[in-house]
Amino acid sequence: MSDTATAPRRRSRGGGGAARRAERTAVSVETAKYIERNIPNFEVLTEEALEIIEANAETVLAEIGVNFVDNPDALELWRAAGAEIDGERVRIPRGLARQLASTAPSTITQHARNPERSVEIGGKSLVIAPVYGPPFVRDAQGGRRYATMEDFNKFVKLGYMSKWLHHSGGTVCEPTDVPVNKRHLDMLYAHMSLSDKPFMGSVTEPVRAQDSVEMAEILFGGLDGRTAMTSLININSPMTFDSIMMGALEVYARANQACIISPFIVGGAMAPVSVAGTLTQVLAEVLAGVAYSQLVKPGAPVIFGAFVTSIDMNSGAPTFGTPEASHITYGAGQLARRLGLPYRSAGSFCGSKLPDAQAAYETANSLNMGLLSGVNFMLHGCGWLEGGLVASFEKFVMDADQLGTLHHFARGVSVDANAQAMDAIEEVGPGGHYLGCAHTQANFKDAFWRSDLFDYKPFETWADEGERDTVALASARVEKMLADYQQPMLDPAIDEALRAYVRQKKESMPDAFI
Amino acid sequence: MSDTATAPRRRSRGGGGAARRAERTAVSVETAKYIERNIPNFEVLTEEALEIIEANAETVLAEIGVNFVDNPDALELWRAAGAEIDGERVRIPRGLARQLASTAPSTITQHARNPERSVEIGGKSLVIAPVYGPPFVRDAQGGRRYATMEDFNKFVKLGYMSKWLHHSGGTVCEPTDVPVNKRHLDMLYAHMSLSDKPFMGSVTEPVRAQDSVEMAEILFGGLDGRTAMTSLININSPMTFDSIMMGALEVYARANQACIISPFIVGGAMAPVSVAGTLTQVLAEVLAGVAYSQLVKPGAPVIFGAFVTSIDMNSGAPTFGTPEASHITYGAGQLARRLGLPYRSAGSFCGSKLPDAQAAYETANSLNMGLLSGVNFMLHGCGWLEGGLVASFEKFVMDADQLGTLHHFARGVSVDANAQAMDAIEEVGPGGHYLGCAHTQANFKDAFWRSDLFDYKPFETWADEGERDTVALASARVEKMLADYQQPMLDPAIDEALRAYVRQKKESMPDAFI
Repeated sequence: MSDTATAPRRRSRGGGGAARRAERTAVSVETAKYIERNIPNFEVLTEEALEIIEANAETVLAEIGVNFVDNPDALELWRAAGAEIDGERVRIPRGLARQLASTAPSTITQHARNPERSVEIGGKSLVIAPVYGPPFVRDAQGGRRYATMEDFNKFVKLGYMSKWLHHSGGTVCEPTDVPVNKRHLDMLYAHMSLSDKPFMGSVTEPVRAQDSVEMAEILFGGLDGRTAMTSLININSPMTFDSIMMGALEVYARANQACIISPFIVGGAMAPVSVAGTLTQVLAEVLAGVAYSQLVKPGAPVIFGAFVTSIDMNSGAPTFGTPEASHITYGAGQLARRLGLPYRSAGSFCGSKLPDAQAAYETANSLNMGLLSGVNFMLHGCGWLEGGLVASFEKFVMDADQLGTLHHFARGVSVDANAQAMDAIEEVGPGGHYLGCAHTQANFKDAFWRSDLFDYKPFETWADEGERDTVALASARVEKMLADYQQPMLDPAIDEALRAYVRQKKESMPDAFI
Repeated sequence: MSDTATAPRRRSRGGGGAARRAERTAVSVETAKYIERNIPNFEVLTEEALEIIEANAETVLAEIGVNFVDNPDALELWRAAGAEIDGERVRIPRGLARQLASTAPSTITQHARNPERSVEIGGKSLVIAPVYGPPFVRDAQGGRRYATMEDFNKFVKLGYMSKWLHHSGGTVCEPTDVPVNKRHLDMLYAHMSLSDKPFMGSVTEPVRAQDSVEMAEILFGGLDGRTAMTSLININSPMTFDSIMMGALEVYARANQACIISPFIVGGAMAPVSVAGTLTQVLAEVLAGVAYSQLVKPGAPVIFGAFVTSIDMNSGAPTFGTPEASHITYGAGQLARRLGLPYRSAGSFCGSKLPDAQAAYETANSLNMGLLSGVNFMLHGCGWLEGGLVASFEKFVMDADQLGTLHHFARGVSVDANAQAMDAIEEVGPGGHYLGCAHTQANFKDAFWRSDLFDYKPFETWADEGERDTVALASARVEKMLADYQQPMLDPAIDEALRAYVRQKKESMPDAFI
């Protein structure tokens, strides 16, 4: 593939123990470069609609305002910047938030410890990270159960082995067997040691964000202003900024680490049931959050986030892959670009309990809209199940395989002389066939995207092999990828320093499970 | 739903046998109006790329030419129009095909016997018809087997009952238990009597096209120039027009019945492995076919067709829902619009043997690209399985449900005062929730698309009910729709005339099974 970088492959074994060890740790796997779109964005909102929504968002900020809870320092920053403070309510004069937001960079370079895996977030790029946050895991063998650190490590390994995945992510599942106040240490160590792709930091307490920064400094041998993490700062929609998330944001902004500032909206519950109303609230919330990040540190790298689902008003369940969620995702992309900010949205969203056809319809709808809406950072790009309650092993590899379609589609259409293929059309002529012609022979290997998972076999072969469905194929692929996994090389001194940091931090406090 | 028309519902029973019969036949079901897009098209080709492809297509026609096989009358028409004839090869001077094509209408009204179900094909419309052509059927109970007329009738009933499906289609499966030379009569009678949605005519022999026209005349009480059928005329790619398909086209064109003129391309076999090369050939072929239709009858209604799949070069299997097929579908839509012709492409394409996650990923990719590429007539919109070899009962209702997402997405985004929802944002304020607010109460019923099939239940309920996957839910839905089905009213005199026509035609010839 022209857009994949392959690190050195394993050579034949030989030599002493040290040589074997070096060889073993030098093994790497093919990973595609992040997507650079050579296609236009799809834009669902007219200029008039955009102007209405932008004007309404300013009205919301100026007349209704937002709450910064338990955060007197934030209120003071806002007051000094010219906002009107009323208790915890912050009313932001028209234009102020947009003006403050203008110091945020339009593109962020997030460094990976393997420089080939560093990513650009912004412009025409699309960087894809796996599912984030599920307390449960599911696989075909064990069904649905609480996630453990062992599951977490497996997901990090699968992410490392997934060709079309650029990012190791963050809380790929909640390791519920590790105390709440310590699990961020194990999760960070897993990302840092089991993968060499970029990763996310902890946001569950400001002190854990600080731990994340310190571990990143160990991993990178000092950050020197480099951005090494992209972390998820959720807004408590509607229009509430709590002190935990803002505290984490403050830590990361001061350390020049990137934050996704993201409303978390189930439509009809945390925002109006209408698309335009939801977009208005999303824009107001992001403007306030981004402006605040720039008050904390001008130039801090931030991403315009939008996590929005629709709701089934019969059951109250959030619904995924729906047309209204698509409208919002496309529209928010337009709003983000007009702000000059990188954009985070979409993912492998589905509501299904199983990695079945429902899950795949919903997910494919979401992935396609993610690409075409201009998303720059796609969290939850694979493995999401049951409304985000579950990280599915099979769905992880199913989705990760589908991400290849986004890479190939984003290349756009070449019209160079080879692509025009006039020689082939002339050579074959009416009634002929192209399978053997020179142009086909020269181009077939790279011509068409091919799934590494799906069934393309003749019916009879497929029947003889047990009529396996996608879940069965995915189960086998999970096993194979974990069996093939080999840890990427990490300087033993750094590894030991990270282990020591985790050990000391854990020893410094009692376990907490809430 | 604001975009659905509901015919009178069944009232309570009463009165004598005739009244009951009238009541029974008056029952109808909700069917959405065909889609009228209030969204832009997605365009993957630049102006420069379009001009290169258009120029190359003219070169193909002028220098390589196309074959009209076993069709001396066609060669004579071409010669008279200024083409160069060499055996069966027709070389068309630059610009001639495009000039001839210009008399084809840009929009076609296809009449249904129920005028509420008539459709516009062209402009911003999207009309969706079910799968066409599979020799096999599959369901969860009976597995995969040869299709019969009983299966065919079931699919027509399911199509009639499917809210988001506008068209009854044509050969929804091949009724292999009916002689080849007679099955078109039974298929047409099924569409005419079991549904009141528009349908397609036979193309397997010119005489069967003539039978189709005559049966449509009986159904409509004379056609008076109205278009009552849209039929599928495949080109034998590369660049071959056989006398059977052209004979059917001639019958339909002279009777002012619409034809889809459609290359049938497995990329790398019937066209070059490159997107630009395939688009060049598609355009050349469609230009030649449309031009020929206008030589037969200027003003004949035709549709720019493009059936294109990629191929797995490992196995030779056609592959579906792939990014290269999407590039071609988007590009062909641009070419069709520049010709001012209605556009047919996309569908519920998949290569999977089962209606599983693979099938759904591939299908969702295809359906989404179909909407955004500006397709006006989508054949195979539901029920396609295993590369088109199989019509699946479960997938038919799964896909038909998903078509609702296209309807809702195509509505675009309203920014009227109600949609802006500023009253709701003010009423709820920071930290509140929207579930009970006045705007939500007034709007929730129509706010979000909702699947009639998918599982939205709480986990515990779903588990208690047997952990059903999408196939299990779809099986139950197929049964329910067939149980609920009631035949739409048809004038008994017309019904008897159609039966008599079919009977006489069948008696006029011996059975043939090839």
